[in-house]
Amino acid sequence: MSQELIAYLNGEFLPVSQCMVSISDRGFGGDSVYDVERTFNGKIFRLEAHLDRLYRSLKYVRIDPRMTKEEMAEITLEVVRRNEHLRGNSDWSVAQTITRGVALGNTTGRTTSVIDDVPPTVYINVYFPPFRRYAQLHEEGIHAIIPKTRNYHPDTIDNKAKHRSRLNLTMAQLEVVEADPEAWPLLLDHYGNISEGTGSNFFIVTDGVLRTPTDTSILQGLSRDTVILLAKQLGIPCIEEDIQPFDAYTADEAFMTGTSHSMLPISRIDWRPIGDEMPGPMVRRLLAAWSEMVGLDIVDQTKALAAISE
Amino acid sequence: MSQELIAYLNGEFLPVSQCMVSISDRGFGGDSVYDVERTFNGKIFRLEAHLDRLYRSLKYVRIDPRMTKEEMAEITLEVVRRNEHLRGNSDWSVAQTITRGVALGNTTGRTTSVIDDVPPTVYINVYFPPFRRYAQLHEEGIHAIIPKTRNYHPDTIDNKAKHRSRLNLTMAQLEVVEADPEAWPLLLDHYGNISEGTGSNFFIVTDGVLRTPTDTSILQGLSRDTVILLAKQLGIPCIEEDIQPFDAYTADEAFMTGTSHSMLPISRIDWRPIGDEMPGPMVRRLLAAWSEMVGLDIVDQTKALAAISE
Amino acid sequence: MSQELIAYLNGEFLPVSQCMVSISDRGFGGDSVYDVERTFNGKIFRLEAHLDRLYRSLKYVRIDPRMTKEEMAEITLEVVRRNEHLRGNSDWSVAQTITRGVALGNTTGRTTSVIDDVPPTVYINVYFPPFRRYAQLHEEGIHAIIPKTRNYHPDTIDNKAKHRSRLNLTMAQLEVVEADPEAWPLLLDHYGNISEGTGSNFFIVTDGVLRTPTDTSILQGLSRDTVILLAKQLGIPCIEEDIQPFDAYTADEAFMTGTSHSMLPISRIDWRPIGDEMPGPMVRRLLAAWSEMVGLDIVDQTKALAAISE
Amino acid sequence: MSQELIAYLNGEFLPVSQCMVSISDRGFGGDSVYDVERTFNGKIFRLEAHLDRLYRSLKYVRIDPRMTKEEMAEITLEVVRRNEHLRGNSDWSVAQTITRGVALGNTTGRTTSVIDDVPPTVYINVYFPPFRRYAQLHEEGIHAIIPKTRNYHPDTIDNKAKHRSRLNLTMAQLEVVEADPEAWPLLLDHYGNISEGTGSNFFIVTDGVLRTPTDTSILQGLSRDTVILLAKQLGIPCIEEDIQPFDAYTADEAFMTGTSHSMLPISRIDWRPIGDEMPGPMVRRLLAAWSEMVGLDIVDQTKALAAISE
Amino acid sequence: MSQELIAYLNGEFLPVSQCMVSISDRGFGGDSVYDVERTFNGKIFRLEAHLDRLYRSLKYVRIDPRMTKEEMAEITLEVVRRNEHLRGNSDWSVAQTITRGVALGNTTGRTTSVIDDVPPTVYINVYFPPFRRYAQLHEEGIHAIIPKTRNYHPDTIDNKAKHRSRLNLTMAQLEVVEADPEAWPLLLDHYGNISEGTGSNFFIVTDGVLRTPTDTSILQGLSRDTVILLAKQLGIPCIEEDIQPFDAYTADEAFMTGTSHSMLPISRIDWRPIGDEMPGPMVRRLLAAWSEMVGLDIVDQTKALAAISE
Amino acid sequence: MSQELIAYLNGEFLPVSQCMVSISDRGFGGDSVYDVERTFNGKIFRLEAHLDRLYRSLKYVRIDPRMTKEEMAEITLEVVRRNEHLRGNSDWSVAQTITRGVALGNTTGRTTSVIDDVPPTVYINVYFPPFRRYAQLHEEGIHAIIPKTRNYHPDTIDNKAKHRSRLNLTMAQLEVVEADPEAWPLLLDHYGNISEGTGSNFFIVTDGVLRTPTDTSILQGLSRDTVILLAKQLGIPCIEEDIQPFDAYTADEAFMTGTSHSMLPISRIDWRPIGDEMPGPMVRRLLAAWSEMVGLDIVDQTKALAAISE
Repeated sequence: MSQELIAYLNGEFLPVSQCMVSISDRGFGGDSVYDVERTFNGKIFRLEAHLDRLYRSLKYVRIDPRMTKEEMAEITLEVVRRNEHLRGNSDWSVAQTITRGVALGNTTGRTTSVIDDVPPTVYINVYFPPFRRYAQLHEEGIHAIIPKTRNYHPDTIDNKAKHRSRLNLTMAQLEVVEADPEAWPLLLDHYGNISEGTGSNFFIVTDGVLRTPTDTSILQGLSRDTVILLAKQLGIPCIEEDIQPFDAYTADEAFMTGTSHSMLPISRIDWRPIGDEMPGPMVRRLLAAWSEMVGLDIVDQTKALAAISE
Repeated sequence: MSQELIAYLNGEFLPVSQCMVSISDRGFGGDSVYDVERTFNGKIFRLEAHLDRLYRSLKYVRIDPRMTKEEMAEITLEVVRRNEHLRGNSDWSVAQTITRGVALGNTTGRTTSVIDDVPPTVYINVYFPPFRRYAQLHEEGIHAIIPKTRNYHPDTIDNKAKHRSRLNLTMAQLEVVEADPEAWPLLLDHYGNISEGTGSNFFIVTDGVLRTPTDTSILQGLSRDTVILLAKQLGIPCIEEDIQPFDAYTADEAFMTGTSHSMLPISRIDWRPIGDEMPGPMVRRLLAAWSEMVGLDIVDQTKALAAISE
Repeated sequence: MSQELIAYLNGEFLPVSQCMVSISDRGFGGDSVYDVERTFNGKIFRLEAHLDRLYRSLKYVRIDPRMTKEEMAEITLEVVRRNEHLRGNSDWSVAQTITRGVALGNTTGRTTSVIDDVPPTVYINVYFPPFRRYAQLHEEGIHAIIPKTRNYHPDTIDNKAKHRSRLNLTMAQLEVVEADPEAWPLLLDHYGNISEGTGSNFFIVTDGVLRTPTDTSILQGLSRDTVILLAKQLGIPCIEEDIQPFDAYTADEAFMTGTSHSMLPISRIDWRPIGDEMPGPMVRRLLAAWSEMVGLDIVDQTKALAAISE
Repeated sequence: MSQELIAYLNGEFLPVSQCMVSISDRGFGGDSVYDVERTFNGKIFRLEAHLDRLYRSLKYVRIDPRMTKEEMAEITLEVVRRNEHLRGNSDWSVAQTITRGVALGNTTGRTTSVIDDVPPTVYINVYFPPFRRYAQLHEEGIHAIIPKTRNYHPDTIDNKAKHRSRLNLTMAQLEVVEADPEAWPLLLDHYGNISEGTGSNFFIVTDGVLRTPTDTSILQGLSRDTVILLAKQLGIPCIEEDIQPFDAYTADEAFMTGTSHSMLPISRIDWRPIGDEMPGPMVRRLLAAWSEMVGLDIVDQTKALAAISE
Repeated sequence: MSQELIAYLNGEFLPVSQCMVSISDRGFGGDSVYDVERTFNGKIFRLEAHLDRLYRSLKYVRIDPRMTKEEMAEITLEVVRRNEHLRGNSDWSVAQTITRGVALGNTTGRTTSVIDDVPPTVYINVYFPPFRRYAQLHEEGIHAIIPKTRNYHPDTIDNKAKHRSRLNLTMAQLEVVEADPEAWPLLLDHYGNISEGTGSNFFIVTDGVLRTPTDTSILQGLSRDTVILLAKQLGIPCIEEDIQPFDAYTADEAFMTGTSHSMLPISRIDWRPIGDEMPGPMVRRLLAAWSEMVGLDIVDQTKALAAISE
Repeated sequence: MSQELIAYLNGEFLPVSQCMVSISDRGFGGDSVYDVERTFNGKIFRLEAHLDRLYRSLKYVRIDPRMTKEEMAEITLEVVRRNEHLRGNSDWSVAQTITRGVALGNTTGRTTSVIDDVPPTVYINVYFPPFRRYAQLHEEGIHAIIPKTRNYHPDTIDNKAKHRSRLNLTMAQLEVVEADPEAWPLLLDHYGNISEGTGSNFFIVTDGVLRTPTDTSILQGLSRDTVILLAKQLGIPCIEEDIQPFDAYTADEAFMTGTSHSMLPISRIDWRPIGDEMPGPMVRRLLAAWSEMVGLDIVDQTKALAAISE
C-alpha cells in the first residue's frame, strides 16, 4: 500500500509526485482560484460552506469548473478516503485549486483567449498542517507586524475571491521577516485600515467586545465566520468595523483565525505587548467552544501532533 | 531532426511538451517574474536591456536566479540556436521565466519560507508571435476600451516589476471582450490616469507631440523606450505625463507598443474614432525608422507571415 | 377641453408646449434641484416626504424657492387636478424643479451674483412613466453594467441633493449602452463601492438579508426608504453597508428601486447571471407588500398600461 | 435699427429676449458644452483655437453639433456682424453653447435616449464683459480664497471639457463670498493641489519663473495658453506642475487668466498678501506684450469702458 | 496662603509661574500626549476612564511615563487638593501632559534616540474653563465653519491618541476666524467626512436619532461617550456613522461635546441655520440628564460663573 | 570665559542651561517653525536662503516674528560670534526657532486666540552636529527602511513649512529602529511615492541621471537645492519626479542630503544592497564639488572631528 499522498488532477487520482502541469497553464500566471478546508477526526469541517465560497470565487473570475458543486464535493471526499490510511491520529488540510487551463491565447494575440473554450485545470489534494509551529504559537502567541505593503484594492481584484495572484503577500512577508524572522504580516488596506494576514483573518477584543475588519477587502474567512457564530451562541458581542493600528495596539486581546489552525493568539503587534496572559481569556473561551463543536480539543491535538510533525 | 520546440527548464534542454512543473511550485501562485524579447531576422533585439530589466524585477521581488546575467544570456541564446532550424523566415518571441521554486513553506507554517533556501525554477522558451492578428490590426487599428478594472497601485505590487501575479488584467480583458470581442483593454491607474494595456504601453500624438504615461505604475516597456529613442533621433518631441481619457479621445493619433508587435495603431478608444487615416503619419514614420534600425520592414514581415501563421 | 398636459411655471398654469425659459436661466447650467413623485390611483405617494427632501436639497445649494413647503404641496396638487381628465387608468410622474433663476452675474463679473436677489424659476409638471419598458423589465430583469465613470465625490457636490448637474451620469450611460443597448449603468463611488444607478437605488439579497449601499454618496431614495420600511414590517433583515462588485455578482437576487417603477429585478450584472428565477422570491414578496400598501398591483398595472403606452 | 442684441438659436437670428428653450431641453440638466471668445477691436481673438477646443468638448461628451467647425465659425462671425453697430468702442464676449437637445428619453425609460436621434440645441450670442469690475481688480487685485469645495475628479467628468454641469462651482462661490463678498474662489483638486478658479486659470511667479497647474483636472484655458506662448517669446521660464496652497501663499506674484479679462493680478490668497506692488512686474510685462499682440492696451481699454459699463 | 495655582512638574509641586521646561524638551516639537478632565463640585468626573485613555495614548506613541495609572491618579488628586482653596464655587479643568523628555538624539544623530533611556517630562495642572464664553454659546449657539484644512489621516498619526502635534488645527482655526471671528472650525477627514472640532466632538440629530462620526480618525471623546451612555439610558437611538456636510446642514439639531463645556449647541453651520430654537429639545434633554448625573445644573453653573470669569 | 554655549532667547543672550520656556508656550504643542544652517570654517552656509525659507514657513503658519529678516540674520551672526571661542576646528549647526508664544486662548475658549496679540517666542542657538556618527555612515552608508507610517498630506499641514508638529516622524523612527537599530526611516507620501527622511532629502542615481522627489510634500531642502545646483554646474542631468520603492531598490546609487551632514551615501534600502561601492562615484563627485565650494573637505573634516566628538 502506497505511502505517498494521492491527489486528484484533471480526472485522475495520482501520487502527488506525478501531479505535474504544463508551464503554459494559466494558473502559472496566477489565473486561478482555490479553497482550503481541514478535517477534524478525519471529517471535513463545513465542506458545503467552503464549496459555496469556491463557486463564488469561480463566478467572480469567470472560470467554469465544468463540474457541479456536488461533483466537486464527491471528488474531494474521495481524495480524503484514498489517503485515510496515512492520516493516523492527525488531520488534513484539504484543498481544491481550479485554473483557467492552458491558454490558447498567447499564440493568437486575441484577448478573447480569456474566454476561449479550453478546459480548466482542477487539482484536489490533502496535506498535513504545520502543527509543530502552531503548538509553539498557542503558547507564545504571534508577533504581528504591519508592513508598508498593502492588500489589493477591490478596484483591481477583490480579496473576497480566494485567488492565487498575490505576489503582494509575498512582498509583505519578505518585509516582515527581516524585522523579526518569527513574525506574521498583518496588512493594511488602501485606506490604512487593518485588513488581514496572509491567509488568516484578524480579531481584537476591547472591553469584552469582539471586533473584526469589515469584509470590504478581505477574504470572507470561514474560521472568521465560525468565531462570529460561536460568539453569537456564547452571547459575546461581535462588531465588524474599520480597525486602525491604534485600536490593535491598545486592545485587550488579539488573535488570528484560519482554516488550518482555527485560532492563534497574538502576543505582540509592532513590538507592543497585547494582553496580560497568553492566550487570553477570550481566546481560551472561543477555542473551548470550538473544540466542543468539533469533538476534539484543538490545542491539545495540536500539541500532541507537534511532537511527530516535522 | 525534431520538429518540436526546445526549451530550457532548470538545467535541461527539453521539448516543450516535456516541460512540466510541480503544482506546488510557487510560480503556480503568481510568485514569479519574467521577461520577453523578440528576434528580428533571428537576432534578439536589445537582449542586454531586457536582461537588465529582468534582474531589476528579480531584485525587487527578491528571487535569486542563481545565475549571472551573462549566464542567463548564454542559455537564452542557446535556446534560440536549438530552434533555429524551425524559424523559417519568421521570428521568435523569446521568454525567461523565474519562479521562487517549490515552497517548503506550506508544510512549515512559517512565513520565513519565502526566503528559504530553495532553488528557483528557471524556464526559457521561444514561440511564434500571432502575426496574423497583428497584420489585421496594422490595417484596421485596435479598438481600445477603458474598463473599470484598474491597474495595481504601487503600494501593493509595482507594475514596473514584470511579474506574473496579474489576475486583474484577466478581469479587465473579460470586461472588455464582452463589449467588443476584438477590443483591447486600456487600464486606468488608481488615480484615473491611463496606465497601460495588458502587455503593451500606450502613446498619443497631439499637435505633433508624442505623449505617454509616466512610469509610476506601468511596465517600463522596452518598445516604449525604443519609441522614445527613435523620437529623439527624429527630432519629435516626446513627453511623459499623466494622461486622462479626455486626452486619449481627442488625440490626433494613438498607438500601443509591445515587444512582440513593436507598434500597432489605435483606431478607436471607447467607440470614439481616433485620427483620419489608419495608420496615421506618426505611426508610419516611427515604424519606418524602427524597420530601418532592425533591417527588415516590420509591417511587411507581419503581413507576409500572417498568411502562414495560424 | 384641452388634451395637452398643463404645468405650473413661475406663477402660471400653462400647456407644456408654452413652458419656455430663458437660455440665460442658471438652470441651463445645472444650477437647479428637483424632486419626483408618482401617483397610485391618482394620489401622490408620500408627497410630504418628497417635499421634505426637496427642501433639504434647496437648503444645501442655498436656493430660496420663495414659497413654503405647504404652498409647494398645494400647487403640486393643483397641477395633478388640472390633468386628472387625461390620466385614464394610468398614473403620473409628478416633478418639481427649482432653479436659481436668471443670473445677473454674467454681466457683473462678481461671484456674489450667486446670492443676488433674483427670483428662482419654479416648474411643476406631470408626465406618464414609460410603463411599456418597465413591463418588459419586470419579466426579463435589468442587465446592469458597472462603467468606469464614477459618481461624484461629496467633496465636489453631494449626490444626496437631488440636483441637475450630472453630466457624469450621461457619460456613464453612453459607456454602457455601447456594450449593451438595453443595459442600465450601475455606478461606483470614488472608493470602488457600488453607489447607485442613474435615478435608481440598488439592493442585493444574500442569504435572506437585504443589503443596500450606505447613503454616503447616493440619493436618499424614497423608494429605497419604502423598501427598508416594508422589510421591517415583514421581518426581513436589511443592512446599509459598503457593497463591492464581488458582492453584487455573487448575490442571490438584486434589484433597483425608483419612484417611477417602484422596483425592478436585475437579471444580470456585468454579464454574470443573478438568481435562479426572474423576478426572485424577495422581489415578489416586497412588490406584493408594496402593492397592498398602495391599493393596486404594481406589476399588473404596469403590464396593463404597457399595451397602451408608447 | 434694433437696439437689442441679436443671437443665433437653432437656425435663426433672433433678439436675445426671444431666445427661449423648452424646459425639457437636456441642457436644462447640465448636458451641454460651450466655449467663449472675446473680441479685440471687434475681431475675435484666436477663434480657430476656441472652436478646436469646443469640438474636443463635443467629442468627449458625444454631442453631434450637426455642423462643421467651419460652419460654426461662419455663424459666429455673422452674430458678431449683426451686433457690430452696438459695440461702440467696447468689445464682446462671444459664446457658443450646444446641448444634447430635447430628450426623448424621459418618456421611454431607456438609457439609450442619450444617443437617440434628436437634434442638438445650438445657441451663439454676444455680450459685454463686466469691464467696471475688471478695472477695479486691475488696481486692487483679486482676493482669492481656497474653499473646501473641490473641483471634479476626472473619474466623474473631466474639467478639460468646457461643460455646464458645474453646480460645485456655485457651491464654492457661495462658500467664499460669505467670508469676503469680493473674493474669488480658487479650487483644489481631489489631491489637494490648486486647480483653477470658476472660469479662470491660475499662475504664480517664484524667483522669476511662471508656474501653473498641470492640465490634469482643469480647463485648458486659451488665455493660459496665450500666457505660456508670450512667456516663451519673452524668454520667461514657465513650468506646469502641481501647486499647493503653500506655494501660492509664498509666491512673489499670482494672477488669474480668463478670456473676458485676459489677466487679473491677485493681491491676497486666504488673507495672506501676495507681492509688493499691485500689479506686480510680471503681470505688467505680460499684459504689455499681450496688448501689443492685439493692438490695444488691455488695461487702458478696461478702465475707459469701466466708466460707461453698468 | 498662596494665591497662585500649584502644579506638578517632574516630582515637584510648584507655582505655575515656576513651571519652566528646557527648550530642548521633545515636547517642544509636539512629541507628547495629554489628557484633560474637569471637576463637578470639585470632584473629577470619570478620572479612571480619562487615565485609561491617557495610557492608551502613551502606549501608542511608546512613551513610558515611569509611573503606574494609580500613581498618576494619586498625584492628580493631590494637585486638585492643593488648589481647592482657590476653586470657590467654580470648577477646574485638570490636565496631565507627558513628553518624551529631553532628547539625547540631536547630538548623536541616531534615530535610536527616540527610544533612548531618558526620563519623560510629566506635568499635571488645573485651570479655570472659559465659562463666560460658554455661557454666551449656550444662548446663541456655535457658528461652525468647515475649513479646507483637514484632520490627520491615521496613516500619519492617529487622532485617537490625544497628542500635541497638531499644527493643522491651528491652521484650521486661522482659516475659520477670518471668515467669522466667533466661529469654531469643524474639520473634515481625508475622505470628506466630518470628523471633529479642535478639541470637541460633533453630533447631529435627525428625526429623533443621534448621529456622530465613527472613531476612525477622531478623538474618542469621553464627553462623546457620556452622551452615548445617556442616550442609551434615555432610550434615544444613537448611531456612529460617516456624516457629510449635507447631513449637517439639513439636521434638526447639532452640537459639540467637550470635557470643559460638556455640550454646546450649534446654531449655524457654514451660515446655514440649524434647528428652530437655541438650544434645541435634544440638547436640553441631554444636558438635563447630565446635570442630574453630576449633581449640578451645568448651564446654570456656567452662567453664574460667567459673571465672575474673565 | 564661559565654557557653556550661549543662545538667544526673546531678546537676551543666555547660557543654554538658562533657556527655559513656559510649559504654556504654544510651541509646546508643536505650534512653531524653525530653520537650521551649518557653518563651514565658522561661516554660515547660505544664510540668506535659509532665512528666506524661514520667513516662508512663518507666512504659511501666520506667525509674526516681530523682527525683519535682516534683524534675524544679525542676531544669528551674533550668536555664532559669542560661541566662536568654543568652536575649535569644528563647525556649528545653527538654528532659529519661532513659536506663536504663550497662548491667552486656553482660558478664553475663543479660537481667535490663535491670532491674539501675543509676542512670539524666538530662540536662536548653536550646537555640534554628530560628526562621529556621520563619519561612520560616510564609510558604511545608511540602511534606509521604508516604514508604513506616512508623511503628512498637504491637506493637513504642508511639509514645505519647516514646522515642529511632526509626531508622525517619531512614529516612523520607532518603527524602523525596531527592525534595525542603525537604520534611518525613508517615508512614503500619501500616494505611495518616496518623500523624504526625518530631516533629510532623498536622491537616487539611475544611468547617470540624478532623480529626487518633487517638492509636493517634502521640505524644500537647501542641501537638496545645493545638489541640484552642483549637478547643473557639473553637467549632470537631474530630474524631480515621483519615485517609488521599486526605483529606489534598483537604483545605481542613492543618498540623503541634509544641512548638518551635507550628503551621506545609502548602502541598503529595505535590506536590498544599493550600488557596488561605498560611497559610489556620483556621491564622491558631488561631495568633491561641494567641498571645493566651501573650502574644506567635508568627509575629511567629518572623520577628523569624529575622533573628538561624543
